[in-house]
Amino acid sequence: MRRFLRHPVRLVPLGFLAAIALGTGLLMLPWATSESRYTPFTEALFTATSAVSVTGLSVVDTSTYWTTFGLIMITVLTQVGGLGILTGATLVILVVARQLGLRNRLLVQAETAEFGFGDVRRLLLRIAGLALASEVLMTAILAGRLWWAYDYPFGRALWYGLFHAVQGFNNGGFSLWPDSLVSFSRDPWICLPLVIGTILGGLGFPALFEVVRAWRRPTTWAVATKLTVWGSLTLLVAGFVGLLAAEWANPNTIGGYDWQGKLLATFTQNAVVRTGGFNALDTNQLEEETYPLLIALMFIGGGSASTAGGIKVSTFFLLAFVIWAELRGEPDVTVGRSRIATASQRQALTVALLSVALVVAGTVALIVMTEGVRYYRALFEVTSAFTTTGLSVGSPDDYGTPGHLTLTLLMYIGRIGPLTLGSAIALNTRRRLYRYPEEQPIVG
Amino acid sequence: MRRFLRHPVRLVPLGFLAAIALGTGLLMLPWATSESRYTPFTEALFTATSAVSVTGLSVVDTSTYWTTFGLIMITVLTQVGGLGILTGATLVILVVARQLGLRNRLLVQAETAEFGFGDVRRLLLRIAGLALASEVLMTAILAGRLWWAYDYPFGRALWYGLFHAVQGFNNGGFSLWPDSLVSFSRDPWICLPLVIGTILGGLGFPALFEVVRAWRRPTTWAVATKLTVWGSLTLLVAGFVGLLAAEWANPNTIGGYDWQGKLLATFTQNAVVRTGGFNALDTNQLEEETYPLLIALMFIGGGSASTAGGIKVSTFFLLAFVIWAELRGEPDVTVGRSRIATASQRQALTVALLSVALVVAGTVALIVMTEGVRYYRALFEVTSAFTTTGLSVGSPDDYGTPGHLTLTLLMYIGRIGPLTLGSAIALNTRRRLYRYPEEQPIVG
Ligand SMILES: [K+]
Ligand SMILES: [K+]
Repeated sequence: MRRFLRHPVRLVPLGFLAAIALGTGLLMLPWATSESRYTPFTEALFTATSAVSVTGLSVVDTSTYWTTFGLIMITVLTQVGGLGILTGATLVILVVARQLGLRNRLLVQAETAEFGFGDVRRLLLRIAGLALASEVLMTAILAGRLWWAYDYPFGRALWYGLFHAVQGFNNGGFSLWPDSLVSFSRDPWICLPLVIGTILGGLGFPALFEVVRAWRRPTTWAVATKLTVWGSLTLLVAGFVGLLAAEWANPNTIGGYDWQGKLLATFTQNAVVRTGGFNALDTNQLEEETYPLLIALMFIGGGSASTAGGIKVSTFFLLAFVIWAELRGEPDVTVGRSRIATASQRQALTVALLSVALVVAGTVALIVMTEGVRYYRALFEVTSAFTTTGLSVGSPDDYGTPGHLTLTLLMYIGRIGPLTLGSAIALNTRRRLYRYPEEQPIVG
Repeated sequence: MRRFLRHPVRLVPLGFLAAIALGTGLLMLPWATSESRYTPFTEALFTATSAVSVTGLSVVDTSTYWTTFGLIMITVLTQVGGLGILTGATLVILVVARQLGLRNRLLVQAETAEFGFGDVRRLLLRIAGLALASEVLMTAILAGRLWWAYDYPFGRALWYGLFHAVQGFNNGGFSLWPDSLVSFSRDPWICLPLVIGTILGGLGFPALFEVVRAWRRPTTWAVATKLTVWGSLTLLVAGFVGLLAAEWANPNTIGGYDWQGKLLATFTQNAVVRTGGFNALDTNQLEEETYPLLIALMFIGGGSASTAGGIKVSTFFLLAFVIWAELRGEPDVTVGRSRIATASQRQALTVALLSVALVVAGTVALIVMTEGVRYYRALFEVTSAFTTTGLSVGSPDDYGTPGHLTLTLLMYIGRIGPLTLGSAIALNTRRRLYRYPEEQPIVG
């Protein structure tokens, strides 16, 4: 049992690699392209990685380049990647929590140290059930709306509904519409199902599970759940207000909409920027100050053990609590009525600073590789890839093969990096028989 | 005694404000400008803040706009600001260390808890003596060189030597030469005195003092000294190599120089970018990848309790050690044979992340205020102001009055912020009679 449960920690990165390799091979086949030719290796690799890592960046025009076979492959890869990360990360959290002797809220035997194969199977089935139910419901609403209001033929409406439902729940980011959601950004029947699916998938199973189980007693939630849920709500409000203020009068985005349209388009864009990846506003025509806002939101990302990427909402707000405690001169960092272990603080710090370093390094690499690219565009693209968001200013198509390989690597690292890093750290903590004397250097 | 020693903590920000107010008034006078007119308030405020905070950003052409009276004012303000921060920060460190019951390496009675007025006076005199000796020596070398090799008249050579010596040691960044050091970037007799003065002033008195006192026994140094000294050496080498690689073939900077010229100009630019503020390369014509490198080096900055700004070398490398320990799964963060207190780790984290937040907020503010400014330029300018570096791409002149006031505020916060914050935290730590139960959320 123990050996089985240690597997996911190592299996997640390998499983993702295998899915990417298989997907690359299949997408290279002539059946996958509308021109019936072999897709070059790097483009197929980019697309497969983008799908499996649920990013949604694209070097070709998704709706015209691929055949239905190719698009089904992308759908399957997205579904495999999304479910893979949901189940893999949840299992890893179980294993790590067990190893650390933490209370285990995800299983029925919450207070016992041991858990069996049956529990894990039940948990995985519950996750798969949640994904399936969400996607079926989303497909139904989207397909119905496309059929009735937009005169799509029934089969086409169903296919478009299914494709976007899978992308939405898995935070996949691909779209069959060349302008993604821009044309639909004032239609709540299209936007809201996708927003709700994106939020559900991007909140992560541990938080979702606890909210469902104990929604009447939020004070009893685990700290990670509190941080994720209240943090996500905060960002949903703050990002919405910021985006609305920045874009209100922009004639190229929502400037010409009525107020309901402005609210819906902005709400939708803000909800999917962490890190669903559709765009409800034209990312090429935003106000200048909107780009830093979107980059920050992408960087923060969604919930732990979710289909969203980024440093995670819990990491961001945990660090905010650390800073707040420091500024107030509090000896402990407390969230609600819990003291945060220094190990968690160090972990959050490591995730955040290594992510900053990777984004900076990736941006510099992209600038060196690409003649004449503007800095903010490179930063936007790299952040989008690393956080598996999939938004793009211009197109990743502009960056050439070395740039594509850089973005491919960033998508893979961004997807499996934090999880692998976090679990490897938690499972390999060394024991020391001696400690050096403490010193308190004054820095800053 | 205790009351006297708690004063500096509050006096430093107020003293800087007073010096800025006085400087602004004096620089507004018609005698200060070559056109004999009143300088507008915001421009005088900008210049006075830039001088007192030892930044060196400028909204007018320093050498032509100001009269000798104006330039002497700038020199005096720079000297007051530089000495003020050296002595103020050193005193604050003493007070904080005493409050925390830390071993006190700066005073003779290192092992006793009590120290008297005589000790402090001796310490302040030692700092002033170091500044004076360095500046006299630098003036002599610079003036001699300008007199002999560049045919400056004796008086002019002395004035130019003195002006740049004061700017160099205090990391002030103003220059009487319109292109700063670019024309002299291949002359070691001009560059090296300024580089050495910049490094001395930018290392900070606590580290300098310990290096001088115990240069044979580096293993006995305080952790802060080790981090500052070895960290600075690392950055001197790494920044030099990076800058050389990026600019080697750039025809607009060092591309046309012989190899000695390339080495000297690059070495000089790298040494003064953290955060001396002269430029030995034309900052408007650097390679694209050089800008992120310079921004990173400015952000890291120099030593604690020095005339340099930034988050400080010790903060940066302390965080690197935290991450390294986390990646290796070590329960403690150790530097040499000392375990780093979690309080210091939290302090470093707070300084670094609040600085990132301020730089991002300042950049967004500057973008919103200025039509058509490019992001990297706004980021460069804001980083330069906040870290009191004084390098500029284009000119701060381009940003208009709201932009100038933003940069003015950033220079002031960047100069006194970390010190005030750090000491206020250290002196106001609360005692709690109860602790909440610990929880270890898994983030990332
Ligand atoms: K995505
Ligand atoms: K400076």
